[in-house]
Amino acid sequence: MRSLEIEVRTGSARGFTDLTPACARFASDASQGADGLLSVFAPHATAGLVILELGSGSDEDALAALDRLLPRDDRYVHRHGGRGHGADHVLPLFASPSITVPVLGGRLELGTWQSIALLDPNADNETRRVRLSFLAG
Amino acid sequence: MRSLEIEVRTGSARGFTDLTPACARFASDASQGADGLLSVFAPHATAGLVILELGSGSDEDALAALDRLLPRDDRYVHRHGGRGHGADHVLPLFASPSITVPVLGGRLELGTWQSIALLDPNADNETRRVRLSFLAG
Amino acid sequence: MRSLEIEVRTGSARGFTDLTPACARFASDASQGADGLLSVFAPHATAGLVILELGSGSDEDALAALDRLLPRDDRYVHRHGGRGHGADHVLPLFASPSITVPVLGGRLELGTWQSIALLDPNADNETRRVRLSFLAG
Repeated sequence: MRSLEIEVRTGSARGFTDLTPACARFASDASQGADGLLSVFAPHATAGLVILELGSGSDEDALAALDRLLPRDDRYVHRHGGRGHGADHVLPLFASPSITVPVLGGRLELGTWQSIALLDPNADNETRRVRLSFLAG
Repeated sequence: MRSLEIEVRTGSARGFTDLTPACARFASDASQGADGLLSVFAPHATAGLVILELGSGSDEDALAALDRLLPRDDRYVHRHGGRGHGADHVLPLFASPSITVPVLGGRLELGTWQSIALLDPNADNETRRVRLSFLAG
Repeated sequence: MRSLEIEVRTGSARGFTDLTPACARFASDASQGADGLLSVFAPHATAGLVILELGSGSDEDALAALDRLLPRDDRYVHRHGGRGHGADHVLPLFASPSITVPVLGGRLELGTWQSIALLDPNADNETRRVRLSFLAG
């Protein structure tokens, strides 16, 4: 298995960071054109990985849905961090930090409108880490 | 890795389509009785894959829960398609388009009441595609 | 592929059971120090697998969020079992029964605050089963 941890610049805004180019590059390099599974894993307790269409408004719609489900207020038992940080710790139940994507001939088998993205609901972290692993088959 | 894209007839109703027979057949053929992991992947930005009990009412309960979480109204920034289509684009955050299932001796290791299903919340598509991949171990 | 089904004592309370020690032990034994992917799979229609920080209050916050999303009342079409059991059957749409974790040199590549946990929303089952599988790469 080839495995690589990358640093992802998420900046100071809440939201999605597109990992598709990094995943495609890694899958191509690690597979050397072969088939297998790509595992994408975020080693963080307050981040998730998703496969969504980005850039057409669904990013904002997804954040709004999460804010309805996990309001950023004082209801949380977990009280470290700023207001609403308790919500960030529940996020991975819904947006898992682990996804797998099939790779054929070194290419990610994503649909036309799908992007792989890191969802970082927390504006306090400028960077996050993501581990990419390729298992040949 | 053996990999096969199948066409799934989802029809004109919203809801779940049982993929268990197709997955079981593929796992049996691709593995030739060996062990490994089955990856099921939907290359669509408005569909998800789930493992649920089907046919006992939970299908309808799941759709009702999604409609509470993602109301089919005009709140969405994403405005392509009909009313409520914005909700469909947020769905994959909650119901990921990628799942893996262990295979032993060519058989899916599902529990008694578990089925693998494609969740297509959008009644506009008569057919969808799903990629099945088997990685032997 | 090495695969093992373990019995997990979930007791009579709803909630999360930490599987991290069992997963770490299995990954170490099955891999003999090599790299690969760990698949964790719960063969139950009313349980999910999650990667969360445990023990700092987020467990309770997660259960409260699920109770808002899936109220334990009489709204469900699925009517087997006690009041609220219909909610348990929708849970796996949100908390999938299948997750994968990368393993390097026999060690789970979890982040510092991440634990692998079984979420059993149903207090009626004293024990549950979880299948651990290691695919070397």
